[in-house]
Amino acid sequence: MLSGLTVQSFLDQLASGSPAPGGGAVAGLAGALGAALVSMVGNLTTGRKKYAAVAADMQRIVTRAEALRQQLTGLIDSDVTAYEAVMAAYQQPKDTPEQAASRTAAVQEALKVATRVPLETLAACVAVIEICPEMIEKGNPNAISDGGAGLLAAQTGMRIAGLNVRINLEQIADGAFVAEVESEMRSLVERGEAARGQAWQLLGDRLALSGLYKGL
Amino acid sequence: MLSGLTVQSFLDQLASGSPAPGGGAVAGLAGALGAALVSMVGNLTTGRKKYAAVAADMQRIVTRAEALRQQLTGLIDSDVTAYEAVMAAYQQPKDTPEQAASRTAAVQEALKVATRVPLETLAACVAVIEICPEMIEKGNPNAISDGGAGLLAAQTGMRIAGLNVRINLEQIADGAFVAEVESEMRSLVERGEAARGQAWQLLGDRLALSGLYKGL
Repeated sequence: MLSGLTVQSFLDQLASGSPAPGGGAVAGLAGALGAALVSMVGNLTTGRKKYAAVAADMQRIVTRAEALRQQLTGLIDSDVTAYEAVMAAYQQPKDTPEQAASRTAAVQEALKVATRVPLETLAACVAVIEICPEMIEKGNPNAISDGGAGLLAAQTGMRIAGLNVRINLEQIADGAFVAEVESEMRSLVERGEAARGQAWQLLGDRLALSGLYKGL
Repeated sequence: MLSGLTVQSFLDQLASGSPAPGGGAVAGLAGALGAALVSMVGNLTTGRKKYAAVAADMQRIVTRAEALRQQLTGLIDSDVTAYEAVMAAYQQPKDTPEQAASRTAAVQEALKVATRVPLETLAACVAVIEICPEMIEKGNPNAISDGGAGLLAAQTGMRIAGLNVRINLEQIADGAFVAEVESEMRSLVERGEAARGQAWQLLGDRLALSGLYKGL
């Protein structure tokens, strides 16, 4: 599993001339980093008398962020597995018309799986972003820049995942599948952007309250 | 060293209720992920007959990206070290006026170091972004989404680092230092944003050429 590699080895494998892991794995990792930073803010808030009034909210948020972090960490590997399945399908023989038809069907099927993976990553990143407004509003203000960093990381996961969905869709012949995924993606990105805007606004407000905001 | 941890352990440490590692470490990691993805595109381009015309450019780009990746990986740890030095300064005694003055001076000195670290991270992320236009223009088009992912990761590193510079500056009393760092940051972010816009435009153009672009 890629999450079992050291950070250094993961970066080395990424930089190498092998087509996987690539951007899709980084989308999962960016989302997981975002979820971890949301948990961090929650964990720096719970258990402190000063923030006792929001302790239950923070505990709920941490539980949710940790579930999303686990899902996103798993998606780092799913992306590579799905890519390898597409490559394997392309390796099928195409010497007879029957073989060629079977190979095309296998490639198309593998591409659909390879599209669903970044779509799931995108949805999980949106879910992380949707936690951010409450986290930034109620979390320990000393950890506010970590909350902002988590928001930016999750947003990046969403955008990279969207790029990968888009690129896979271009190779898929099934128009109904393409339309369905595009519609789902559009609605997810709209939700993510709305929550991101709200969270960023709250971040600016809280930084202003503590004298930290100067037109970020 | 944090880069010697597994990805899973790094995420666990991030999510924990310890104030370090936090957003600053993620800024360095995001930049390193961006640099690694730029190298990946380069390494998927060099050594292929089809792209022989750009092989020397790609080799130069990979050399530059790898140096930046090494620098950014080191900055993951520098951020934690600088944070710990600030915390240690705050622990100094303040029982007498002399002690209090000495403590204040030590805190201010440590805060300056802790500001220079994300500023260096920001500069290195901008340098990664500045490689992207040429990489996206000349790189193997099959790796174009990895190049786009690298651009997005480096941009995130730049933005998180900027957030951390800003937050540290607010605690620094030396107006000349604050003005100097703000001016340097503004000029770096302007360069980064200009290169990012250019790279994103080129990405859209190349995806359009290969039929992949649909209003990313």
